[in-house]
Amino acid sequence: MAEKKVLHMDLGADSYDIIIERGALDKADELLDLDRKVMVITDDGVPESYARTIADLSKDGTVYTVPQGEDSKSIDKFSEILSEMLRLGFGRKDAVVAVGGGVVGDLSGFAASAYMRGIDFYNIPTTVLSQVDSSIGGKTAVNLDGIKNIVGAFYQPKRVIIDIDLLSTLPQRQISNGLSEAVKMSLTSDAELFELFEKGNISSSLDEIIIRSLMIKKSVVEQDEKEQGLRKILNFGHTIGHGIESFEHLNGLYHGECVALGMIPMVSESLRPRLIKVLDKLSLPTLVELDPDAVFAAMTHDKKGEGDTVTITTVPEAGKFEMKKVSFKELYPLIETIGKQL
Amino acid sequence: MAEKKVLHMDLGADSYDIIIERGALDKADELLDLDRKVMVITDDGVPESYARTIADLSKDGTVYTVPQGEDSKSIDKFSEILSEMLRLGFGRKDAVVAVGGGVVGDLSGFAASAYMRGIDFYNIPTTVLSQVDSSIGGKTAVNLDGIKNIVGAFYQPKRVIIDIDLLSTLPQRQISNGLSEAVKMSLTSDAELFELFEKGNISSSLDEIIIRSLMIKKSVVEQDEKEQGLRKILNFGHTIGHGIESFEHLNGLYHGECVALGMIPMVSESLRPRLIKVLDKLSLPTLVELDPDAVFAAMTHDKKGEGDTVTITTVPEAGKFEMKKVSFKELYPLIETIGKQL
Repeated sequence: MAEKKVLHMDLGADSYDIIIERGALDKADELLDLDRKVMVITDDGVPESYARTIADLSKDGTVYTVPQGEDSKSIDKFSEILSEMLRLGFGRKDAVVAVGGGVVGDLSGFAASAYMRGIDFYNIPTTVLSQVDSSIGGKTAVNLDGIKNIVGAFYQPKRVIIDIDLLSTLPQRQISNGLSEAVKMSLTSDAELFELFEKGNISSSLDEIIIRSLMIKKSVVEQDEKEQGLRKILNFGHTIGHGIESFEHLNGLYHGECVALGMIPMVSESLRPRLIKVLDKLSLPTLVELDPDAVFAAMTHDKKGEGDTVTITTVPEAGKFEMKKVSFKELYPLIETIGKQL
Repeated sequence: MAEKKVLHMDLGADSYDIIIERGALDKADELLDLDRKVMVITDDGVPESYARTIADLSKDGTVYTVPQGEDSKSIDKFSEILSEMLRLGFGRKDAVVAVGGGVVGDLSGFAASAYMRGIDFYNIPTTVLSQVDSSIGGKTAVNLDGIKNIVGAFYQPKRVIIDIDLLSTLPQRQISNGLSEAVKMSLTSDAELFELFEKGNISSSLDEIIIRSLMIKKSVVEQDEKEQGLRKILNFGHTIGHGIESFEHLNGLYHGECVALGMIPMVSESLRPRLIKVLDKLSLPTLVELDPDAVFAAMTHDKKGEGDTVTITTVPEAGKFEMKKVSFKELYPLIETIGKQL
């Protein structure tokens, strides 16, 4: 499946296209309007040539490189990028391009949303996680005082380029990290995709997995752009997952790995062995040493909560979901379950 | 005209009401949903009792006071406010209320837009300038590296309360500063209002002036929420005005005073003596000592420019306007004209 595919995100005045095409990076000037000042934001974990390619294709391109990792999602970096754009004389009709994973996309999108109250933003995600997940949805953000994504904007890109060739340099663990989100979307919304994870060859199915995941997320986001209701299904596995992530970040677990763990207690008992088998196949963790009290404390600080309650999504069978509001206390035994599996 | 008047801003999903009513502050809990955590942001130039009243009417209200003046429109203050909200456990369903002039409104609105990617924002402007001007339009911003309003968001309040009683503590110079924007709107859009400035008693006509100005701005913003075209008429007088403002800030000229000066070269020669008479009546400046080169340099840094050209609005007769794109160079002689009047 090497041909070009276009997903049109139908969001009224904020509509845009996602171009899925291997090799698209090298002809980005045909797909994006680069005939202006362009700030190409990347991090030092992404191959340098990716951002350089975009800058060279631009009329007046500048590469801005932040350190790899979550610490770059800060108000300080946001402010530094805006200062640099100001220094270079960026105007309302110039553009920002993100070339990197979720950190780069979130930071760049927020900077683009705020510079002169919003200039054009293009996203070229370079990880599986950002290709299937953060490239759709318009959620931009930085962190503050140790809380993730607490400051940001809903701001849609003008166009997204998904070039699956860019994943070739990615370590296997990073690929699995992203596929965890694809498993998540299959569980709530696409039983066929879940079966592909169970029975198929993952690496030769990468294009199909990414496209099917994007189509699920597209459908959800179009129906609920501002996260009022349905979009909460995208948080499936994330409530406990974020709690584990806050607690486990010292152990270096990736986001998708925490989500993998967070999904396990949220599926029915009949589905659970099948899910664990898929996660094993992807080398994603299914057991973790944790302190239930610490995870619980971190989880209740998660901003998705509404007071003492939280809306959770559970999956009774592949491709189906249920949403319900529960008290945080009801989730405590579920955390213990994952811990006990050790 | 002491009765209550409601202007409905028709902006699709972002629609909201502006309540114009003397005495509204004291019953804000009937007009706003204050039954939640409420961050009331004000500055130390506003009577303390205003913000305190709102906090006391709230279920869980906190007053946050910034120093009066443009320096509070900074990314640092923005970040401090967000940290404080985080510390106090603000959630998605809590709210921010601005009680102050344009600086407080712009800063608070941007903070509300960014906290958790946007929580409810109410605006209670306490100056003529903010009542007629910044309370409508959804433009929020802070300054960066000496450039005004370069970082921000288009973010509409959930409701605006205009309580003209709050102006009673305002010095006359501040009142005139705000009325300059009302004169501006009358010139492009409301010949009757301009005649009221010429012939009427200003202080007894304050309610009518504010309401008519709001109706002009409402109409313009509804037609052009994101400042693509028509909204540029609101910049009438501001191109040269901002240049003067950058240059004259050490002399302490207020924004409206700079706009007053900036309008003079932009009206027809037949209208100019009438405008100068109105400005004199309001004790607004009509002549200023300036260095045309310095004003020109500051003006060309103004973000409203598009490269070497800028779209300006001129007024051939009261209530009519023309918009045209000119090169900055064409404006130079106009600056000199104001200087020569000394």
